[in-house]
Amino acid sequence: MSWLDDITWSADGLVPAIAQDAATGRVLMVAWMNREALQLTVEKGVAVYWSRSRNKLWRKGEESGHTQTVKEIRLDCDADVILLQIEQHGGIACHTGRESCFYRKLDNGQWQTVEPVLKSPDQIYSR
Amino acid sequence: MSWLDDITWSADGLVPAIAQDAATGRVLMVAWMNREALQLTVEKGVAVYWSRSRNKLWRKGEESGHTQTVKEIRLDCDADVILLQIEQHGGIACHTGRESCFYRKLDNGQWQTVEPVLKSPDQIYSR
Repeated sequence: MSWLDDITWSADGLVPAIAQDAATGRVLMVAWMNREALQLTVEKGVAVYWSRSRNKLWRKGEESGHTQTVKEIRLDCDADVILLQIEQHGGIACHTGRESCFYRKLDNGQWQTVEPVLKSPDQIYSR
Repeated sequence: MSWLDDITWSADGLVPAIAQDAATGRVLMVAWMNREALQLTVEKGVAVYWSRSRNKLWRKGEESGHTQTVKEIRLDCDADVILLQIEQHGGIACHTGRESCFYRKLDNGQWQTVEPVLKSPDQIYSR
């Protein structure tokens, strides 16, 4: 019986994982993990997700360099959501070049972009 | 065209919503919303979710009194996760009587409960 068996995996064998900046408390992104991704995350100490669009393991930062060192891993009461406390290298979690993926705010019935692009995606993904 | 149409709803018409304590930055819980739940949340200024287990709208706190006043609503880059900044009334978000649902921490290959029950569920749900 492994700690991985305590998790309520979806029918697809996935669980959503929230990445929260350990220093600032900002919620940076939400991605998915399968068993292997979570096991690798624990083993390596850096966030590894499962990309549903590419259907493969996604070592966060493998292209961008924006890796995430994992400080703590928590599980919720229903055992179906993971919360990671991370250190975000480069200060950018979002593929749009922003610190956080949650850069749109509902304001007067519209989603307003309220956070700057810190580095253009062209620059981030050029190598 | 409504702001609700900007959201990438799941096949079931749902989107996960993270509730974060606006004052402390703690991630308190994750629940689901359908269009009606999110619209009601905006209209009322208090969190309304969709209960997948009970298959109905869940006005958070309707039984426990632990309502959530919503201060801000954000959307992520993929438009498939909502982040709420909330004020948690009673200081308890979890049905186990804990502040946060994320009370288990991975420690040496085991999920350890690291947060106290502030009020027993018997007391919370007795009325």
